[in-house]
Amino acid sequence: MGGRRLGIATACLSGLLEDKLAAAAAAGFDGVEIFVPDLLGSPESPADIARRCADLGLAVDLYQPIRDVEALPRDAFAASLRRVEHAFDVMEQLGTTTALICSSVDPRAIDDDDLAAAQLAEVADRAADRGLRIAYEALAWGRHVNTWDHSWRIVARADHPALGLCVDSFHLYARGGDPAGLRDVPAGKLFFLQLADAPRLDMAVLPWSRHHRLFPGQGDFDLTALVGHLDAAGYDGPWSLEVFNDVFRQADPGPAAVDARRSLLGLEESLAGAAVPAVGGTAFVELAVDPATSAEVTDALAALGFARTGAHRTKPVGLWEAGGARVVVREEVPLPDAGSVPAAVAALAVRTPDPEALARRGVELLAPRVPLPHAGDEAELRAVAAPDGTLLFCCPERPSPGGDDFWPGDFVSTGVRPGVGATGIDHVALSPPFDLVAEAELFLRTVVGLAPVGEPTDIVAPFGLVRGRLFASAGAEPVRVVLSSSLVRRGGWAPGVPAPQSVAFAVPDVLTVARAALDAGLPLLDVGPNYYADLAARGVADVDVLAAHRVLLDVDASGGQYRHVVTPVLGGRVFLEAVERSGGYAGFGAADAPVRMAAHRRSRASV
Amino acid sequence: MGGRRLGIATACLSGLLEDKLAAAAAAGFDGVEIFVPDLLGSPESPADIARRCADLGLAVDLYQPIRDVEALPRDAFAASLRRVEHAFDVMEQLGTTTALICSSVDPRAIDDDDLAAAQLAEVADRAADRGLRIAYEALAWGRHVNTWDHSWRIVARADHPALGLCVDSFHLYARGGDPAGLRDVPAGKLFFLQLADAPRLDMAVLPWSRHHRLFPGQGDFDLTALVGHLDAAGYDGPWSLEVFNDVFRQADPGPAAVDARRSLLGLEESLAGAAVPAVGGTAFVELAVDPATSAEVTDALAALGFARTGAHRTKPVGLWEAGGARVVVREEVPLPDAGSVPAAVAALAVRTPDPEALARRGVELLAPRVPLPHAGDEAELRAVAAPDGTLLFCCPERPSPGGDDFWPGDFVSTGVRPGVGATGIDHVALSPPFDLVAEAELFLRTVVGLAPVGEPTDIVAPFGLVRGRLFASAGAEPVRVVLSSSLVRRGGWAPGVPAPQSVAFAVPDVLTVARAALDAGLPLLDVGPNYYADLAARGVADVDVLAAHRVLLDVDASGGQYRHVVTPVLGGRVFLEAVERSGGYAGFGAADAPVRMAAHRRSRASV
Repeated sequence: MGGRRLGIATACLSGLLEDKLAAAAAAGFDGVEIFVPDLLGSPESPADIARRCADLGLAVDLYQPIRDVEALPRDAFAASLRRVEHAFDVMEQLGTTTALICSSVDPRAIDDDDLAAAQLAEVADRAADRGLRIAYEALAWGRHVNTWDHSWRIVARADHPALGLCVDSFHLYARGGDPAGLRDVPAGKLFFLQLADAPRLDMAVLPWSRHHRLFPGQGDFDLTALVGHLDAAGYDGPWSLEVFNDVFRQADPGPAAVDARRSLLGLEESLAGAAVPAVGGTAFVELAVDPATSAEVTDALAALGFARTGAHRTKPVGLWEAGGARVVVREEVPLPDAGSVPAAVAALAVRTPDPEALARRGVELLAPRVPLPHAGDEAELRAVAAPDGTLLFCCPERPSPGGDDFWPGDFVSTGVRPGVGATGIDHVALSPPFDLVAEAELFLRTVVGLAPVGEPTDIVAPFGLVRGRLFASAGAEPVRVVLSSSLVRRGGWAPGVPAPQSVAFAVPDVLTVARAALDAGLPLLDVGPNYYADLAARGVADVDVLAAHRVLLDVDASGGQYRHVVTPVLGGRVFLEAVERSGGYAGFGAADAPVRMAAHRRSRASV
Repeated sequence: MGGRRLGIATACLSGLLEDKLAAAAAAGFDGVEIFVPDLLGSPESPADIARRCADLGLAVDLYQPIRDVEALPRDAFAASLRRVEHAFDVMEQLGTTTALICSSVDPRAIDDDDLAAAQLAEVADRAADRGLRIAYEALAWGRHVNTWDHSWRIVARADHPALGLCVDSFHLYARGGDPAGLRDVPAGKLFFLQLADAPRLDMAVLPWSRHHRLFPGQGDFDLTALVGHLDAAGYDGPWSLEVFNDVFRQADPGPAAVDARRSLLGLEESLAGAAVPAVGGTAFVELAVDPATSAEVTDALAALGFARTGAHRTKPVGLWEAGGARVVVREEVPLPDAGSVPAAVAALAVRTPDPEALARRGVELLAPRVPLPHAGDEAELRAVAAPDGTLLFCCPERPSPGGDDFWPGDFVSTGVRPGVGATGIDHVALSPPFDLVAEAELFLRTVVGLAPVGEPTDIVAPFGLVRGRLFASAGAEPVRVVLSSSLVRRGGWAPGVPAPQSVAFAVPDVLTVARAALDAGLPLLDVGPNYYADLAARGVADVDVLAAHRVLLDVDASGGQYRHVVTPVLGGRVFLEAVERSGGYAGFGAADAPVRMAAHRRSRASV
């Protein structure tokens, strides 16, 4: 992807300045913004920091922020100039030419654009004397200047060659600004671009900015439009991330920087309008299960109508099929460390017209390609790794025996015909820890090409709030992934760490599947009579039938229905669902989740 | 304290319904509100739940919520009645007489008070037929009814004996309501009181309510005023907590319920205007240190001007003194579990005119009294335990040799005179995990009688945001405690778990203390030249002197100064500070914390 310069502010990352710089360089960034507090906390001189950056191949694109400079009474402005001159001293050592001045929040600041422009021009004069320049930015909570167009009016009025604009996507969008106007700003006045995404939150802009910014593609802002307007205007400076986020501020800066750069690569791709490889449904889900408890999983599959149709030629791996739904069960003794679990979703295999193109794009988006060990005549599936280590298999739409990725050929037929009942994989539900949700989400959005369906949903789970969100590909047979995670999970009380994952099968008739499963002895989860009495009171018909089949029901605002049955938690980690959607229901049954979780908890406690 | 009935909504606590009920009973609550989703998630019938509550000694005070009942078109209202009748069925089994109906958020709801009143009267008629009654509450985000006075106009208009008001302190204060008007509501119409505190947050009321409610005394609402008005109006129902909070929702319900009831006991005391025992300064701080590293602590004390004036008669405990500052160093081999640390603040000893009264009041506020093992002729200090196990010693203001709590008598004089330099304990800084801050804060506010000084401060620490807040007693020589904790601390990256604690000594002249400490070989923390260059640019004089003495400086908006020096982290957990305040500075040096933390991190990494 592009030759555009990509940068990141040190404020985005966790650690000491040297940790941040090393992470930015390792992730492949071209430059950094040095955040003043990071410099103040470093024992190295600015010149030493400059050498460190140079050694890492990082340009110092910006020194920021210089605060409360302009529109001040004369004596206060004299103090500003003293601070500015010191900043210039530092910049000369740092070898950076651009400083960010953000609009004043000083209570003494005067609402006078002429004064602001004159004082900024005076600062710019002094900058120009040293070969430096000033990028002026409107903070969304600036005392008098808090919109980008107001900052531009002041820059235009000052009309100084060393004074230009810093556009910050957060400040612009948070105040409802229209980026189209940027097209009319002369390219020579567009000094710097700071990029941040954010969810739309109904709260004050300052805490929104300080705690909830996200990397591009993780939030709700139309950053593609913004960079499009800036491209049209002729802006040719770096795209530089400035993201303040409670989670990223404390995360390992190595993966966080990779995630950050991925977000910009995704934005570049989005701006270029590059064709995203189509993803057309889930080929299979691979579960890794401890041999000691694998029968829990396979018995449940069998009861839900799956048949073991294939055995891998060389590995302890079975292929289970029911209609169009396929599950690969890989037996694997868990490693004896604290993080290992006896059953887990190990891979999601998606169908795509060009598997190599999908995998190659993943690699371009910084997902490591995973070479799969395979014997000479075995299929060579393309695979990249998600941030949590789960694999994304890129499968051909119709595997043909001639292709090198004809994965069904790796299985020896058991002679058993596929089961019936299911028609495909409805969704996979993953449960990353809260601090890893944003990166999991970005992977799904960029590498897999899924889009969020609706807003995040808060589930009042028995052991604390769980925030869930569904992501899906386009098309009639979408790939769907639910990410859900506990907002807070501390101390020894709350169980279920790691939280359960699930695989849901699409079925045309959940009652038939449920009856067969119960007859086969599978103890489908029973949430108890209070739930069904409530359904009846809400006007649902035939609740006795639902109760007898242990069917949970969610009804959306348009009357669309999600009828599903749920197995116990199997192998300590994973449960299965059979799901019947009707009436255009597009969710994932979040309304049922609290009773489902309570019943799971009770069934696990009683084991 | 009082004979008032105290209750709690099951929604406040974590776990399955049975966990919540057991915790509420164990904490001594009189009754509970059964939150509908908790009942739906229970396999027990409402009658069984009623028996469970009765066995635990809990009344079921309220069944809640019934939503979207009123002001609806006729056909939709018919569906409401079906749901209401089902709720009444459940209530009869539960043995509760009062149901909460909260104001409608249904998009079909009509802005028509007459219709709302008429339909609520119809519901009340049906309730009365069964001996039940309806408490109507204005949700702060109700579609048309969202203030308590509006809900009261509708209740008054309906004029039905089985229809009254539910007052919810959150909804009232969040909308800026004036509780004084409640005095004019007839007592017979005040059916129920739900209590929640909250911090003042500039955000939408719904997420504020769902995530950020707190127990009374943990937030910013004047709940004492509210309950005062309700008392004046003749309300004689329970005080019942309804607190939605991300942390409490997932915390061990046992301690959370104790914390909850403590908050109501504190509110009762506040309403009664009971004299809170005065706390007049810090008598001493006790540090528990591993003998293997205790020299790190005692060498630092000595370098800061402290002298070991006493040795405990029977235990490996030393008394260190400098002027009015006293530190008790107790050698204790840490337990070999993951949570043990080599050095920690074990106790805070406060001076009070009546130690027994302070301790007794702590016990009334549910702090366990800790009997201290002591030999026959040793002092019997009164002590209660904070939620984290730290002890609060209640010491006499002037220990006199005749008293049974003459704790200095436990120490044999070493013959060494107290050091000079310090005048007292400036503050103790504790660092509870984020999920335990609210309970630590409530303990300080209620049991110790401290008040917050200013708002919480977000510190941009190298490894993520740290939120700090200072609490202090009144008077010339205040007891000050800082609580600071990481907003998010996940994964293996961020170091310093458990985070450092500190003890700060008040000194009249920090330069003298620093010079002596450096001369004694104590490596006072050096944050490096960039910090001092920045101070100079901000107009601070004599920064070379500050730098030479390793003094950090915070200047408040009024010019008040906080000049302090900081030791390395000692024994792996604790650092010491010498603090000189001037010009009325009232904070705790939060502005310096980021550079201090970075330097601490570097010094630990280099050890």
